Amino acid sequence: MSGGDARRDEMPEIRQHTTIPIRVAQRLPMYHRHLYELPMDGVTHISSAKLSAYMGVTASQLRQDLSHFGRFGHHSYGYRVDELFHILTVILGLTRKHKMVLVGAGHLGRALANYEGFARRGFYIEGAFDIDPSVVGGKLAGIEIMPVEELAGFLQRSKIDIGIIAVPADAAQDVADTLVDNGVRALWNFAPRRLEVPQTVVLEHVHLSDSLMSLAYRLHKLDVCKNQTAYRC
Amino acid sequence: MSGGDARRDEMPEIRQHTTIPIRVAQRLPMYHRHLYELPMDGVTHISSAKLSAYMGVTASQLRQDLSHFGRFGHHSYGYRVDELFHILTVILGLTRKHKMVLVGAGHLGRALANYEGFARRGFYIEGAFDIDPSVVGGKLAGIEIMPVEELAGFLQRSKIDIGIIAVPADAAQDVADTLVDNGVRALWNFAPRRLEVPQTVVLEHVHLSDSLMSLAYRLHKLDVCKNQTAYRC
Repeated sequence: MSGGDARRDEMPEIRQHTTIPIRVAQRLPMYHRHLYELPMDGVTHISSAKLSAYMGVTASQLRQDLSHFGRFGHHSYGYRVDELFHILTVILGLTRKHKMVLVGAGHLGRALANYEGFARRGFYIEGAFDIDPSVVGGKLAGIEIMPVEELAGFLQRSKIDIGIIAVPADAAQDVADTLVDNGVRALWNFAPRRLEVPQTVVLEHVHLSDSLMSLAYRLHKLDVCKNQTAYRC
Repeated sequence: MSGGDARRDEMPEIRQHTTIPIRVAQRLPMYHRHLYELPMDGVTHISSAKLSAYMGVTASQLRQDLSHFGRFGHHSYGYRVDELFHILTVILGLTRKHKMVLVGAGHLGRALANYEGFARRGFYIEGAFDIDPSVVGGKLAGIEIMPVEELAGFLQRSKIDIGIIAVPADAAQDVADTLVDNGVRALWNFAPRRLEVPQTVVLEHVHLSDSLMSLAYRLHKLDVCKNQTAYRC
């Protein structure tokens, strides 16, 4: 779409109406995160080689991934960090605010509610719910915890984008149903339970144990392979 | 190594001393998790096509991934679930017990300590530490919380495999140093901070926000593309 190279003072055109391989989509948040961190180290411009090394991918992979969305980067000095950060912000749809509800005010729910990184990215918890009467009425990150029976009514009154499911496995499907039936189109599920949702709803399931198994596997490989790199024997 | 097909009553040979692409390694825990769940639905044997669909990969990807480790599956009926689960358990190094310490007894640390899925897979928290005197001496999942000053001494007395870092970002590198200096070779980091560790140490960094950004991206794509599949326009 954009005919020539991006120039210094012009924001390059961003193609968003494009089919993206799922693996590319999965790397975008990581790119965004690294681009947020770089200016903290005083980096404002960076070569493609250095940026990709910092992010743990190859330079050609980074270039290829970004090429789905347009022509970014400059022949002379690589990437402007602020520009590329903005581009990733647009691609990911983070230029707008996201409203969330949290269902489950246990330790995990509280940890999530207190995570400062979410508000910085425009993600706000607008309501928190729990089934436990001893918890209901208390506060969580400044928000009053409501009884879960009020979840449906709350969703009908408020436009909520994302439902966070931080309840025990047995309760997760019921919570998901209530969220979906009342217009929530994105679920962030922490319950160790496979959820059934309509195809029009997006679902991210956080499997913490996968990450621990992966760590164990790499430790095991260290022992099996008796050398310093985790995947090579 | 194994010359013929695996036979019904013989465990096929498992090649472990082999170089594995990192993406294959990342899928292994997911395979293991699904194979654990299948018998709960009464599934004991499953075709390659059905198993791969259940896992969300293609049949050829599943076959290719497993082929790094040997020749599994049976011409007539596909896979025996219990056998393949055992094979993945061996590959991942989960036949042995893993001892862990938890540093940081805040909400996240408590959520992790109470997660029952870890003990079932042979992962046990042997010690919990915090810097807050009002927390020290209390209990967490049945374990007494010790002052973080005692972490180094504890590690010298106990053989610990994995250190869980659930402290604020500012404290994470110090904790990582103490763990590594005292023989811990695997770190599971939840602090939003890039950690420097020797190459001989394996590090898994859980970026919860990446998962949320990915969810937001898929929601954004739904709106941009106005259809039902998240990555296709």
